[in-house]
Amino acid sequence: MKIRILVRLKPGVLDPQGRAVHHALDGLGFAGIEDVRVGRMIELEVADGTTDETLAKMCEQLLANMVIEDYVIERAGEQG
Amino acid sequence: MKIRILVRLKPGVLDPQGRAVHHALDGLGFAGIEDVRVGRMIELEVADGTTDETLAKMCEQLLANMVIEDYVIERAGEQG
Repeated sequence: MKIRILVRLKPGVLDPQGRAVHHALDGLGFAGIEDVRVGRMIELEVADGTTDETLAKMCEQLLANMVIEDYVIERAGEQG
Repeated sequence: MKIRILVRLKPGVLDPQGRAVHHALDGLGFAGIEDVRVGRMIELEVADGTTDETLAKMCEQLLANMVIEDYVIERAGEQG
């Protein structure tokens, strides 16, 4: 079973990498960009019966820093 | 307009970060994981009329390293 976990900084947490990308895109002449945030995508191939609870534990113990980051779990087929 | 760009290593390109995460999850006792790949998610807030062509240019010029990475552009509402 394919799982996609998206980890992003919580709203309000400063994102220097996003700022750098924003600045670089401006410098390349791309106009009209209002905001850029950079996060991580972790794609897992897990056993079919893996529960949401187990996936949440993986995120909380390892994949995301819960102090400053949020995560979203997407199962294959849920995204377009 | 909210845009989400997912950047992942091309198939076949070694992913040491994914390997490290895989190993760490095994070490934490999570069983049944077959594969882990780590990529980037870039979330942009862009002007409403921004074309796919412009977004592709952003990816190819800055956001993805086309030699070893692929990208996918998702517009808000396309994902579950």
